Amino acid sequence: MMDISSEVVNALRQILPEESVFYPLHEPFFNGNEWNYTKECLDTAWVSTAGKYVDKFEKDIADYTGSKYAVAVVNGTAALHIALELAGVEADDEILVPALTFVATSNAVTYCNAIPHFVDCEEKTLGIDPDVLREYLQKTTILRNGLCVNNQTGRIIRGIIPMHTFGHPVNIESLCAVANEFNLIVIEDAAESLGSYINKKHTGTFGLMGVLSFNGNKIITTGGGGVILTDNNKLAERAKHITTTSKISHRWEYCHDEIGYNYRLPNINAALGCAQLEQISQFIAAKRQLYKKYRQAFQTISGVKIVSESKNNVSNYWLQTILLDESINGQRDAILEATNDAGIMTRPAWMLMHHLAPYSKSPRMELPVAESLARRLINIPSSPQILLTK
Amino acid sequence: MMDISSEVVNALRQILPEESVFYPLHEPFFNGNEWNYTKECLDTAWVSTAGKYVDKFEKDIADYTGSKYAVAVVNGTAALHIALELAGVEADDEILVPALTFVATSNAVTYCNAIPHFVDCEEKTLGIDPDVLREYLQKTTILRNGLCVNNQTGRIIRGIIPMHTFGHPVNIESLCAVANEFNLIVIEDAAESLGSYINKKHTGTFGLMGVLSFNGNKIITTGGGGVILTDNNKLAERAKHITTTSKISHRWEYCHDEIGYNYRLPNINAALGCAQLEQISQFIAAKRQLYKKYRQAFQTISGVKIVSESKNNVSNYWLQTILLDESINGQRDAILEATNDAGIMTRPAWMLMHHLAPYSKSPRMELPVAESLARRLINIPSSPQILLTK
Repeated sequence: MMDISSEVVNALRQILPEESVFYPLHEPFFNGNEWNYTKECLDTAWVSTAGKYVDKFEKDIADYTGSKYAVAVVNGTAALHIALELAGVEADDEILVPALTFVATSNAVTYCNAIPHFVDCEEKTLGIDPDVLREYLQKTTILRNGLCVNNQTGRIIRGIIPMHTFGHPVNIESLCAVANEFNLIVIEDAAESLGSYINKKHTGTFGLMGVLSFNGNKIITTGGGGVILTDNNKLAERAKHITTTSKISHRWEYCHDEIGYNYRLPNINAALGCAQLEQISQFIAAKRQLYKKYRQAFQTISGVKIVSESKNNVSNYWLQTILLDESINGQRDAILEATNDAGIMTRPAWMLMHHLAPYSKSPRMELPVAESLARRLINIPSSPQILLTK
Repeated sequence: MMDISSEVVNALRQILPEESVFYPLHEPFFNGNEWNYTKECLDTAWVSTAGKYVDKFEKDIADYTGSKYAVAVVNGTAALHIALELAGVEADDEILVPALTFVATSNAVTYCNAIPHFVDCEEKTLGIDPDVLREYLQKTTILRNGLCVNNQTGRIIRGIIPMHTFGHPVNIESLCAVANEFNLIVIEDAAESLGSYINKKHTGTFGLMGVLSFNGNKIITTGGGGVILTDNNKLAERAKHITTTSKISHRWEYCHDEIGYNYRLPNINAALGCAQLEQISQFIAAKRQLYKKYRQAFQTISGVKIVSESKNNVSNYWLQTILLDESINGQRDAILEATNDAGIMTRPAWMLMHHLAPYSKSPRMELPVAESLARRLINIPSSPQILLTK
């Protein structure tokens, strides 16, 4: 009988056939107006802060997501930081964060001098489990002056950051209901889920604010970039203001009326984003097709399944993911070894937040599902150009 | 007799003759390999975090400045923030900052939960006055356990951020001597002074760390970008680590060993920087020539002089600056009005730090020279392409 590592390599080889080629996890694909728009920036010397592409990118993203406002910033981490600050997060507040996430979600909380409080996820969505969360908050918090207070630490739990893992929508509607019961602000980390919808509403538009990322590994890229989404015009205005050093508009005076940040997206990066966004339907179609091919390839391998979108959701399938049965989770590292040795890049889940030294003492609930997923989950090559050609 | 505003407009018109053209304060000039390098990034799909241009840009900047190490980051503000954090700045420390600076210098201190403490400058360099500073520290601080303590607030004064205003070198050698006497860490804000030298040593290489900016208005630009300079290899390594999310290098594991930042410079922006740096000698030559032309044009206007580099210094003349005599400082706004109305962009000094709402309660010394300069100083168009053509 063939070992599981070889079976996985063989399944992947059906879709990634070239033995002499290295298949990265995710690579950007430039097949549209990237050259034209970038060149225009250089020809007009508008590469930096001012320039029409920043405005256009914000408008295009707002249109695409259905968010009333989109504020472009230098990356997704900066977007999260500003969203939390504008939501009124204060020093020593606790913010509920999934244990299974990229470290930026927690770091943004730390930048506000607040404390991430880690919660468990559900296998169906890979995101925060609303039912487990409700039960946990019922048992461990009280409402005092309308604020949710952690019984154990005495600190205010100010908000929650649901994250749409690998592009798969979390059960955001139920999470918003829980947040509402406990008076928590919802900031959606949709860094990975541009093009993912819940009941036809775009991820990142359910909470008070949402955040997108356009890092080089994302479904579309600006080199580095992010966006804050919100339907609230005051928050959008404040986001623009404090991400551009809080300078008051004046013909020549340099007056800043509050502590601001240098978080604006350069025009040249926005130009790239405009060109990329024009191609997103094509990218998503390729990724959904790739999902189907992987599903077929893995169908015959016992103990390995590909992660699928849930009912009523549309996933952008940003990172394709296989999940090992508990019975073979001890094989994870062997599979990672064999696939990477074969030139097929694979990766486990991020190390869970509470296993990282800087967050090992943060408050948390029991995290059995996150722990289990972290042992069993493997991301596999997901670039749209696996199926698209220039 | 002609009024002073008209005289200034006429003087500027000698160098900026086209009445139908708008002359900005500073515009980037792309006349080299910008398009080749950017195109290469797009063609190879290396626009983001990894990629050879980041490494090349760091090496090129280190070579150019004579700094042992250069760590590229997303902008000058981020560079300052990280330099302060790595210097060991703690919450509630005070950091000496010139009252005459761009707000980013103060904001970076605030990001560390420390407090900027504003000090005066000298007219000769537009930067911190070392003699006034020494006298002030002698009178207002004591050395306790080897640390400089503010008598009035009881807080530790941990460091100082000398800034090279408009590219003109501050008297950094004397400031380092004062810092040494009072056990202050020196972080040099050389955001504006790439290509400026003191006794043939590049600005930004005198302190423990120095900081450069490549914002769109700077002498060379990356769209948005910055660099941390240091001769200390441990600090350079730590800077690289915490600006790239503190991820430990591993074939697949995502482990972060401390709180990190998403401050890396995208490859596409670094590509722009490499192309720009190849042309810096040409830019500086043009700016020095422009200075000479302005000096001649203003020679006959009584009460107006152009700011010149000091003895033993070489300035990059990033922003050309005229200085009004005290006798006519009441005319500043009329001159700003007339020049901007004529399509010649001019700007006063930044509003002084202690006049900004968020910093109005920060500790400070008497600031007579900064106040005087702020009333009298005007930046005038400084782009190299005023004299260079494509």
